[in-house]
Amino acid sequence: MTTPRQLKLGALLHGVGGSTSMWRHPDAKPDASVNFELYKEWVHKAEEGKLDLIFIADGLFINEKSIPHFLNRFEPLTILSALAAVSSRIGLVGTLSTSYSEPFTVARQFGSLDVISGGRAGWNVVTSPLEGSALNYSKQEHPDHGKRYRIAAEYLEVARGLWDSWEDDAFVRNKETGVFFDPGKMHTLDHKGEFFSVKGPLNIARSKQGQPVIFQAGSSEVGKDYASSVADAIFTGHDSLESAQAFYKDVKTRVASFGRNPEEVLIFPGIAPILGATPEEAERKYQEVAGLVTIENALNYLGRFFEHHDFSQYPLDEPFPDVGDLGRNSFQSGTDKIKKDAKEQGLTLRQVALQSATPRSSFIGTPEQVADQLQAWFEGGAADGFMLAAAVPDGLEDFVDQVVPILQERGLFRTEYESDTLRGNLGLPVPENRYSKASEPAGQHL
Amino acid sequence: MTTPRQLKLGALLHGVGGSTSMWRHPDAKPDASVNFELYKEWVHKAEEGKLDLIFIADGLFINEKSIPHFLNRFEPLTILSALAAVSSRIGLVGTLSTSYSEPFTVARQFGSLDVISGGRAGWNVVTSPLEGSALNYSKQEHPDHGKRYRIAAEYLEVARGLWDSWEDDAFVRNKETGVFFDPGKMHTLDHKGEFFSVKGPLNIARSKQGQPVIFQAGSSEVGKDYASSVADAIFTGHDSLESAQAFYKDVKTRVASFGRNPEEVLIFPGIAPILGATPEEAERKYQEVAGLVTIENALNYLGRFFEHHDFSQYPLDEPFPDVGDLGRNSFQSGTDKIKKDAKEQGLTLRQVALQSATPRSSFIGTPEQVADQLQAWFEGGAADGFMLAAAVPDGLEDFVDQVVPILQERGLFRTEYESDTLRGNLGLPVPENRYSKASEPAGQHL
Ligand SMILES: Cc1cc2nc3c(=O)[nH]c(=O)nc-3n(C[C@H](O)[C@H](O)[C@H](O)COP(=O)(O)O)c2cc1C
Ligand SMILES: Cc1cc2nc3c(=O)[nH]c(=O)nc-3n(C[C@H](O)[C@H](O)[C@H](O)COP(=O)(O)O)c2cc1C
Repeated sequence: MTTPRQLKLGALLHGVGGSTSMWRHPDAKPDASVNFELYKEWVHKAEEGKLDLIFIADGLFINEKSIPHFLNRFEPLTILSALAAVSSRIGLVGTLSTSYSEPFTVARQFGSLDVISGGRAGWNVVTSPLEGSALNYSKQEHPDHGKRYRIAAEYLEVARGLWDSWEDDAFVRNKETGVFFDPGKMHTLDHKGEFFSVKGPLNIARSKQGQPVIFQAGSSEVGKDYASSVADAIFTGHDSLESAQAFYKDVKTRVASFGRNPEEVLIFPGIAPILGATPEEAERKYQEVAGLVTIENALNYLGRFFEHHDFSQYPLDEPFPDVGDLGRNSFQSGTDKIKKDAKEQGLTLRQVALQSATPRSSFIGTPEQVADQLQAWFEGGAADGFMLAAAVPDGLEDFVDQVVPILQERGLFRTEYESDTLRGNLGLPVPENRYSKASEPAGQHL
Repeated sequence: MTTPRQLKLGALLHGVGGSTSMWRHPDAKPDASVNFELYKEWVHKAEEGKLDLIFIADGLFINEKSIPHFLNRFEPLTILSALAAVSSRIGLVGTLSTSYSEPFTVARQFGSLDVISGGRAGWNVVTSPLEGSALNYSKQEHPDHGKRYRIAAEYLEVARGLWDSWEDDAFVRNKETGVFFDPGKMHTLDHKGEFFSVKGPLNIARSKQGQPVIFQAGSSEVGKDYASSVADAIFTGHDSLESAQAFYKDVKTRVASFGRNPEEVLIFPGIAPILGATPEEAERKYQEVAGLVTIENALNYLGRFFEHHDFSQYPLDEPFPDVGDLGRNSFQSGTDKIKKDAKEQGLTLRQVALQSATPRSSFIGTPEQVADQLQAWFEGGAADGFMLAAAVPDGLEDFVDQVVPILQERGLFRTEYESDTLRGNLGLPVPENRYSKASEPAGQHL
């Protein structure tokens, strides 16, 4: 490619937010998580800003300690499909767990979304951290962390096989001859594996981007290997440039070791910018949202990563308690890091809980300062793009109005969509159909 | 109610149609089954005609003998969600099987569609006729007909329990006090049954119609009992007024025997009208579509109801072959009827196949004639409403433009939507939340 490398941007649409308390902000709409009009406004704003994609996260278990957004929110496939009908260029990415679903159904639903949207679907493949999920799915137990990734690997093989059921020219639709399709271009999968046996064919054909884009967010060792071996794009979270650089290098090396092209696997750290006309104003805004979080909120928030462990039983101002292996079977990479940081930095429970619930990001400042940071990460080998979350109620609007123009001015971000498919905008190749491939002389991509 | 009883209308949106060959018609769009723009036009047309609902059918197994529409079509929840965003009054009803899915996921997806659409979702609960479905879902075998209905019964109990997880006033969202919800109004289900164990709560609350409307289409004995005990509305198919009257009476009696109000269970026979300016023109149109069907097409079409049995092995002009119990575990009521009719009327295989693939409906004629028929069925104790299928490419457009105005003129059909929810338009009560109920002194409905 001769055009200069540009960064990619996604927006996490997350209702009342990923925090315990943003809903209490004076500007917050406290019903945001189930307000379809608001989701429509957001997708229009994101498309106005030429963002690559919007992203819907997900989870399969709640209890009375869950944060507000998790209690009552849209299911990803339904909200993405609805948003497909009111947008035209932006990618539509959603989380779905391979631990509690069926590949035939999920391949179909994402395939259908992909066709409805004209090639704009993406699937964030997760394995479900929370053990409680098993209780909602008639399962004796939550598969352990390693097994969940083995299931996910086979699952994605099946889904990708099903997506290729029909070659792109299979549907002849010749009214004269009465031939609707070419039976030689319809393929059963006949998969029989450790966890799944699926015959196929799928009852929906490929969209013009070939297959939905695969996102993944694994951060444990096995998770990074999985993401590196299968994903088109990887979400990740980092509290410093150095940590993001290390992750980026690690993952790109893994990608290459799987024989894949590192340029075709994009890494998206999550960021939650807070903008102000001056650095002081931005800081005041951060203090305002942080001040809404009570210590009780923070303990609940922290507890979720440790299987909803009750941290209120420990003294607040003593060293972070030893909880043993708790958390390793759910949010493995996240809880490992919390334990390690607490130990190395000698943090109290109160400090750990507040750091988790009210993280101070590197992206607090004026629009120029935030653009500088993004540029530093992007050019410094830490990111191919960023996943925006709203740390304040109008976070998306502010970013599109104030930061995007600066990035565009600097040539770091598009001023027009290059394509009307998600793969097209992300610069990712259309995966060739495995069966068409076989009859071609050579080449991974045509 | 003091307003005169009016009939209800639904439109089956079914791409290239339920026939083997309508796609070959000169006016047909042969990619209709995956053409989102066309589905949008259809939903707009249906809403212009003040129809109660659109309906998306479904199936989970295809092979090379399946009819064109089944091979490559939208998945119901995704297409309904997309259509929700481009409509405002019409109900959005889709088929989903209880034999190959999880109640937590399905309750969530229909719940989410219900909230996105502002209370317009409906679920046609089916048990999946085709044995091949098991092969796509890692299952050893397709559960037998009776067991499928037992699963369906427990499944719907779970889904309805999950839908009531949150009482309607559970979300307090008080920014001052920091109380987001009232924990006393959040309910776990703690269901433990023969087939499912599901803890809950569901992570989405009720829409303004309370719960999605339940449709069912059982026609076997066990099927009719199931439908009568749980459904808000019942789809059925009949080739004569007498047969429809008998079904109507039978089902309404069963409904009453389950202690339910027969007026709150609506019966919708399916119809596929063909309209002409004169009776002769309508007949010509019927002949035109019937003429597109080859005998090979017809044998394949028939075969599907008998587990894709290969009928081409039998002589065409001899009596319909004895296929034993084949079909009883899939389309039980339909195949029982085919066998019975063939025997009683001494039909050949060719006659049976052509009758199945090119049915001559009672709704062929001028708009007035078709309106007369509808009125006769509606007033004659055969129907509370009708489910329209398109027998010719512009079937929906023609019906809305030509028949709806006559029905309106006669006072048989609305000229404006009564409500913006599906229950509201169907005249069905909002089901009270089971937990709120407990604290009320009495009464099924407030
Ligand atoms: C940007 C981002 C988005 C994520 N979205 C989800 C999500 O929607 N649902 C979910 O269960 N986990 C989500 N995760 C968590 C990951 O799926 C994964 O559980 C976590 O990163 C730990 O990975 P590990 O299991 O490899 O340790 C997300 C992580 C990141 C960084
Ligand atoms: C109007 C109508 C629509 C139907 N839609 C579906 C459908 O979308 N998917 C499906 O598997 N079966 C569908 N059926 C078939 C029924 O689910 C059921 O299998 C059939 O009526 C036989 O019922 P029985 O099993 O009680 O004999 C439909 C039937 C009717 C009359």
